[in-house]
Amino acid sequence: MTTRQDCLLLDADDPLAALRAQFELPEGTIYLDGNSLGVLPRATAARVQQVITAEWGRDLIKSWNTAGWIDLPQRVGNKIARLVGARDNELVVADSTSVNLFKVLSAAAKIVGQASVGSAPQRRVIVSERTNFPTDLYIAESQCRELGWELELLDADAIGQRLNEDVALLMLTHVNYRTGRMHDMAGLTAQAHAAGVRVVWDLAHSAGAVPVDLHAAQADFAVGCGYKYLNGGPGAPAFVWVHPEHADSFWQPLAGWMGHAAPFEFTPGYRPAPGIARYLCGTPAVLSLAALECGVDTVLAAEPFGGMVALRAKSIALTELFADLIDERCAGSGLSVVSPREAAQRGSQVCLTHAGSEPDSAYAIVQALIARGVIGDFRAGDANADDILRFGFTPLYTRFVDVCDAVEHLRQVMTGGEWREARFNQRAAVT
Amino acid sequence: MTTRQDCLLLDADDPLAALRAQFELPEGTIYLDGNSLGVLPRATAARVQQVITAEWGRDLIKSWNTAGWIDLPQRVGNKIARLVGARDNELVVADSTSVNLFKVLSAAAKIVGQASVGSAPQRRVIVSERTNFPTDLYIAESQCRELGWELELLDADAIGQRLNEDVALLMLTHVNYRTGRMHDMAGLTAQAHAAGVRVVWDLAHSAGAVPVDLHAAQADFAVGCGYKYLNGGPGAPAFVWVHPEHADSFWQPLAGWMGHAAPFEFTPGYRPAPGIARYLCGTPAVLSLAALECGVDTVLAAEPFGGMVALRAKSIALTELFADLIDERCAGSGLSVVSPREAAQRGSQVCLTHAGSEPDSAYAIVQALIARGVIGDFRAGDANADDILRFGFTPLYTRFVDVCDAVEHLRQVMTGGEWREARFNQRAAVT
Repeated sequence: MTTRQDCLLLDADDPLAALRAQFELPEGTIYLDGNSLGVLPRATAARVQQVITAEWGRDLIKSWNTAGWIDLPQRVGNKIARLVGARDNELVVADSTSVNLFKVLSAAAKIVGQASVGSAPQRRVIVSERTNFPTDLYIAESQCRELGWELELLDADAIGQRLNEDVALLMLTHVNYRTGRMHDMAGLTAQAHAAGVRVVWDLAHSAGAVPVDLHAAQADFAVGCGYKYLNGGPGAPAFVWVHPEHADSFWQPLAGWMGHAAPFEFTPGYRPAPGIARYLCGTPAVLSLAALECGVDTVLAAEPFGGMVALRAKSIALTELFADLIDERCAGSGLSVVSPREAAQRGSQVCLTHAGSEPDSAYAIVQALIARGVIGDFRAGDANADDILRFGFTPLYTRFVDVCDAVEHLRQVMTGGEWREARFNQRAAVT
Repeated sequence: MTTRQDCLLLDADDPLAALRAQFELPEGTIYLDGNSLGVLPRATAARVQQVITAEWGRDLIKSWNTAGWIDLPQRVGNKIARLVGARDNELVVADSTSVNLFKVLSAAAKIVGQASVGSAPQRRVIVSERTNFPTDLYIAESQCRELGWELELLDADAIGQRLNEDVALLMLTHVNYRTGRMHDMAGLTAQAHAAGVRVVWDLAHSAGAVPVDLHAAQADFAVGCGYKYLNGGPGAPAFVWVHPEHADSFWQPLAGWMGHAAPFEFTPGYRPAPGIARYLCGTPAVLSLAALECGVDTVLAAEPFGGMVALRAKSIALTELFADLIDERCAGSGLSVVSPREAAQRGSQVCLTHAGSEPDSAYAIVQALIARGVIGDFRAGDANADDILRFGFTPLYTRFVDVCDAVEHLRQVMTGGEWREARFNQRAAVT
């Protein structure tokens, strides 16, 4: 049985403990929702203020050059590249994850189309996971409508065997937003390539949370989110990476001026920039991008302490501790861990279900926890999936004692029946 | 001859003069580049700080509800609607102008496709203006590639007669970014409709600068920019409007979760929201959106003083004064006004060319002015167009005395040959 004192000792021994001081954490809150919106870095407010008052307010238009606004998508992109196994000038920050997914699906479809000439098989299916994040599925569905293709949704375990000569693309979120299950990126990519299938990875729940090595996995395309584990702030711009082998091959259809080979020549006639820069489109949202850079810097600050490998080790320890304590302390409450217990199959989150006859119990339990200052979130189920209580563990700022205290709150909520009183007043949440 | 004293009197009599106090204007600068990047409103820094420290930092994920982040695209959209003759819930803020243009061109193409069935003419041409803003042309070119259509670029005066049964869409920027020439929105739209052509208007250089009435003009689609006359800050999100007659008709292909009929149900299977909300895609960049709202508010602050009509009257007075003073004081310098002299054909900017044998003279003159604190910008010409010196006049914060002083600086730059010394060190600029 792990005690609170044990957890305090784990924190005292934690080589990453000092990284927590980078953040503004609200007093009295245990925040286990960094997989939805990362917390505010201490540096962000002053940095954005500087952008507003000095760069915009005082220097105005010339800041595109003097403050380097024009290079922000690449500069911040190069920083994120270090976290996901991409190289310099291979990854840019741009638009939203959904928009970037549209770009890479469009480009990937062209690559597939080129390979499908003559007697080669006609590949017209995008395969994805049934519980992939909805916006990814919507964008893929829309792309299929445009192309006359089909989107086929499967359970995770059925994906590998489906990859045959009908399939054009495999599109997966590396860590599932509902269950926390992590796919074997290298293994599935190799399996897909063996079947002639290109692979698009969404790193929304991976970047900054688990080590990713896009080159080692030989991934084709990747997109990801700035406002979860990268702590970039609400609606922070997203990122996009394309394997250098493909990056120059095709136009993506969102051919805006920032992706032009010579954007300042203002010439009619689009000439796509070489490499990943052609995945830029319009003018970047500078304030939000500056905030994202502060967030990414909080993750890079772990580099002297072992970087993503060390963060991952702590993340595994935190999530294992949480799952074990749930088993120990909430036994008999109807709560059970549904995320994979094997660390290699789990991202930096743990999800629970609640077995019981009362409707909406999982929702009510999450509300009761929020009332106590323990912030997780609720994801509704459907015919194929249970309601879940979802808890994210950001190793940069989550302590072992936070895990212990969160489970103790949960135990009390369950034991006292407090959750039955929880009011249903905060239905909406954003992942 | 208008004297400086006359200009001071015009300012003293200006009913809109008090609106200037809404802005942080750098000391010693005459800023005539608000058509590229609007100046910083005084309210913005504190508002963004509040979003960062209180809404994000303290309240974290729950601010999607409690701080109304989720409604920002509609709330700010409804404010912009008041400036462009759109109604409540017809216009949303989202993404960039280029991305929004892609959405509306895609939807417009589907409308045209639907009308082209059977014996109806096959319309496969997008018509635009040769000197339309490049990113608009790139997006249209890309769309044509996808559709197997053709983009045809014409001089402004040739557009009307080209609108026949080959043409699918007319895509124009209402006020040309180079020349400042303003198209007759209602007239061209009527002419297009008579020929069965749908019209997409880019309001980048109109919104907040000249009165626009999308409904009166019976426009089909419109997009626009947040960081020019709306003072939303560098790379502020853009906006998109679709006539209610079309808004529900088609999916636009960027079918992200924010455009879903029930985004929080997280169901697979895209169901587009009714109306303009389906033109949303991914999660909005909240910090940049909050700053945009402050900028839009500076324009709405003119409503008690006559709103866009009063702003337009002042804009015409400012641009006429500038053109007249150039004629008077810079005679013999080689400078001449190339923007239309008739107010009804001119937006809120005045462009000059410089006739002379020295290469890059227009660029050097702009640099010499910038060195004196008069900020305009330079746009390079090509085989079809001269180099231009471009000056934007934002009636919210530009005074008559600023116009007078700017021309006096220009006179001195030309008379003393100072521009020949100007160093060529700031080539890039962002419109």
